[in-house]
Amino acid sequence: MARLSPNLAGIHCFACETAHDPQQLLTVCRACGLPLRVDYNLSSVNLSLRDLQSREPSLWRYRELLPLLPGDEVSLVEGLTPLLQVEANVWVKDESRNPTGSFKARGMALAVSMAKHLGAQALAAPSAGNAAGALAAYGARAGLPVTVAMPVDTPKAFFDECELYGATIHRVQGTIADAGKFLREHGPKDAFDVSTLKEPYRIEGKKTMAFELVEQFDGEIPDVVIYPTGGGTGLVGMWKAFDEMERLGWIPRGRRPRFVSVQSAGCAPVAKAFLEGNDRTEPWPNPHTHAYGLRVPSPIGGFICVRVLRESNGAAVMVTDEDADAATRQLASRTGIDVCPEGGAAWSALQTLRASSVIRDQDRVVVFNTGTGLKYR
Amino acid sequence: MARLSPNLAGIHCFACETAHDPQQLLTVCRACGLPLRVDYNLSSVNLSLRDLQSREPSLWRYRELLPLLPGDEVSLVEGLTPLLQVEANVWVKDESRNPTGSFKARGMALAVSMAKHLGAQALAAPSAGNAAGALAAYGARAGLPVTVAMPVDTPKAFFDECELYGATIHRVQGTIADAGKFLREHGPKDAFDVSTLKEPYRIEGKKTMAFELVEQFDGEIPDVVIYPTGGGTGLVGMWKAFDEMERLGWIPRGRRPRFVSVQSAGCAPVAKAFLEGNDRTEPWPNPHTHAYGLRVPSPIGGFICVRVLRESNGAAVMVTDEDADAATRQLASRTGIDVCPEGGAAWSALQTLRASSVIRDQDRVVVFNTGTGLKYR
Ligand SMILES: Cc1ncc(COP(=O)(O)O)c(C=O)c1O
Ligand SMILES: Cc1ncc(COP(=O)(O)O)c(C=O)c1O
Ligand SMILES: [Zn+2]
Ligand SMILES: [Zn+2]
Repeated sequence: MARLSPNLAGIHCFACETAHDPQQLLTVCRACGLPLRVDYNLSSVNLSLRDLQSREPSLWRYRELLPLLPGDEVSLVEGLTPLLQVEANVWVKDESRNPTGSFKARGMALAVSMAKHLGAQALAAPSAGNAAGALAAYGARAGLPVTVAMPVDTPKAFFDECELYGATIHRVQGTIADAGKFLREHGPKDAFDVSTLKEPYRIEGKKTMAFELVEQFDGEIPDVVIYPTGGGTGLVGMWKAFDEMERLGWIPRGRRPRFVSVQSAGCAPVAKAFLEGNDRTEPWPNPHTHAYGLRVPSPIGGFICVRVLRESNGAAVMVTDEDADAATRQLASRTGIDVCPEGGAAWSALQTLRASSVIRDQDRVVVFNTGTGLKYR
Repeated sequence: MARLSPNLAGIHCFACETAHDPQQLLTVCRACGLPLRVDYNLSSVNLSLRDLQSREPSLWRYRELLPLLPGDEVSLVEGLTPLLQVEANVWVKDESRNPTGSFKARGMALAVSMAKHLGAQALAAPSAGNAAGALAAYGARAGLPVTVAMPVDTPKAFFDECELYGATIHRVQGTIADAGKFLREHGPKDAFDVSTLKEPYRIEGKKTMAFELVEQFDGEIPDVVIYPTGGGTGLVGMWKAFDEMERLGWIPRGRRPRFVSVQSAGCAPVAKAFLEGNDRTEPWPNPHTHAYGLRVPSPIGGFICVRVLRESNGAAVMVTDEDADAATRQLASRTGIDVCPEGGAAWSALQTLRASSVIRDQDRVVVFNTGTGLKYR
């Protein structure tokens, strides 16, 4: 038996609640094929925001809310990224400051740690770019071989970095969906698949972004969180974290920020489903955008994203590449932040929502810059 | 009068000890033209390593040892970078995790903060690449116009990033020395010059690397620090910090790590002077290396670097680009760290010094990865 956090209460399906065994290497629900959720026994957790103050400057400071015990993690020191105020009532959560320059590091730190801990001998994932770099780096740190597949038109820097970390790389025609299909058909048979929302722990890494927001706001909650959405792990993870914080007593009952999903006008399945009042996303035909992280035509967790937007009284915005690029330049030149196209899209969405008064001047807003712009140039 | 830290005792020349007025925008010593040193009154400072534990996760945690009072800083949240163990007795201090991906952010955070605070209206500097990106970003954050000059053969990513942050960019034939000359002759007349060691505060930012080492080693001191040296601010800054820590009682009297300067075989003025027993460096003819940060043919602070190596019982190593590249790949693929050529050179130097038993297995060694490799590829 692998030793796991005593707070880990079990693993259940997000859709049908079927229980799964945390001692196994898990992918999706064996009953319905949808994503799995990691549950904690929080009544036994006695942890206040103040207790955190003197802890390590990484996401491992939230140890009681993570599945692993100290010493079992594969870490490059991820998380606790800066929250930079850039205007009155507006902050940027700068995820470019993670290992390999994106928030994907958080998810991969947890997924790779758990996979190694539970006995995986090799790892694989399709990626729009950033997840591949993160997986390659954490695989190198863990001493596990990594295979990644990315769309051929992904910028060169993403391939170069995977190569540097020693990963096996496949270039695939199409999108991340085609890259995933390629790996299922031609990838290494012995490699554990850590695709977005097809294993349960990437969410556990991503959720720490919400813990940090509340800690960095001194226990308060921003009114609006603007998040560029592809597969949706970040959104789903943060939503889950607000739930956990409520149960811990860190935040008042029922208080949540309004979540805004930002997608590309060239690929917006979550935004479309939300805006049209549907519960499920439909595959986006001919997806295109050079905010590559947003080019996810059929996210398996799309239905959870839509639920989060609805329950949080949130919004969804589609942004063109032109507007995203202009916003990237504006935000970077005003602030010195290294903004990626996805972060630029989020900045553009803020302007749109202000113009339509969905966001008012007195709302306290957090915009996510999910990664470094360096790899796109 | 600008308000400054009450601990700031004065500013003196590193070479001739002439006193200078901290209320002025200072460059080099008005008497002899050499670099200036910022001095603190440490007898009034009551600060223990334990006090630091609950402080902000950035270099501003060392506030008592910095020139500015809270609220006066221009910050992108810099410093407190990870110290990652990569082998028995070997750690990498990963400076790629700073804003703009290099340790230059530390120096520029302090230099830009002070320049703005003391009334500068515009900023300029020549650079091998990383300093320009950092200056452009901090200038954007400060709302001050920036002009940079870089050698024409600097990789494109360095220019692109300066452009993104809105800086005025000059491409100059030759090295950083020629870029500096160009700015003195053709640069904006109203811009304050923040060249390496030609203003006193970049050292103050860089010195925090040594505070962090001692804090991250729980009050102990590594036996060896391996540092890729160009202009030498890092080396000089860390040496100064060990002095300050001794006076604060953080470390035992006289205890220092041995400092190793790593330079390129194609440009090694500090290593040459040290190895030949000279006190001063001589301009390196035809400097060449694609570890661009090491292509500094006539560092104004070279004599201080040589002094540090000598007083610390240190060493100097020249590394070829081929060896640096091989070491970059080795370190990155083993650890998942985003290694730059300068960091690769430092890793190569470790292997050389082990082979010659200058470093023994039981020595605790810190290797600096001074920046991200992303901008060089
Ligand atoms: C920079 C960036 N932003 C946003 C996203 C979308 O993230 P998520 O899959 O969590 O919705 C990605 C995914 O690749 C990304 O790389
Ligand atoms: C990545 C990198 N490493 C090392 C150096 C040399 O630093 P210093 O001038 O502090 O010696 C530089 C300077 O440009 C650099 O960019
Ligand atoms: Zn199910
Ligand atoms: Zn002097």
